[in-house]
Amino acid sequence: MSIEKKIEPNVMDKMCPSRVVLNHVTSRWGLLALIALQEKPLRFSELRRIIGNVSEKMLSQTLKTLEKDGFVHRQSFDVMPPHVEYSLTSHGQGVSLHVKALATWVETNIENLPLADATPAQ
Amino acid sequence: MSIEKKIEPNVMDKMCPSRVVLNHVTSRWGLLALIALQEKPLRFSELRRIIGNVSEKMLSQTLKTLEKDGFVHRQSFDVMPPHVEYSLTSHGQGVSLHVKALATWVETNIENLPLADATPAQ
Repeated sequence: MSIEKKIEPNVMDKMCPSRVVLNHVTSRWGLLALIALQEKPLRFSELRRIIGNVSEKMLSQTLKTLEKDGFVHRQSFDVMPPHVEYSLTSHGQGVSLHVKALATWVETNIENLPLADATPAQ
Repeated sequence: MSIEKKIEPNVMDKMCPSRVVLNHVTSRWGLLALIALQEKPLRFSELRRIIGNVSEKMLSQTLKTLEKDGFVHRQSFDVMPPHVEYSLTSHGQGVSLHVKALATWVETNIENLPLADATPAQ
């Protein structure tokens, strides 16, 4: 009888894939994309406008990573002009709830934090 | 009568301080530090060992940022050898609950995600 050793996923383990995925969903633009897509599916240009201050290149890389991780679905519509829409998968919906809850906590409590008057970084 | 215009904090606004703070609590090492400190106060060396793979310099910068934001309290004990302990403030406890919930979601669901077999980035 072979005994398979089961290792529990742990973000504190530098070799654990959960740490990689956690980095993706909390990346500067990844978390904002997940929050924006929670509302409804969006075209690239719409998503870019909502997030604000993100370059085409960075948003494109971010969406590709989230698509590979199974959080975002990219659908291409065969119309003229070509039209691509991004939406959350069921996993994307699941993780975005927690990302959104975190962002909401920060928005709600920002006025009581010492940094509230700081100039934002670009 | 003067009318004060109240602007609601919004992480989608590139000029909003909440966006800056959200970046701090979701930084690569910031989120792991918040999770580790949720358990109990820790010395620098203990924290570094738990997080794993973080340099002294990066952890030190991360803790300073979280301290400035009002999430982490740094206490120096006047003993020999000198002893410094880090703990969460009440705001730190509040935000770390959401960070921890997000990390737990990723750990719980990682096996069902396409990236589960990927080699982690260093």
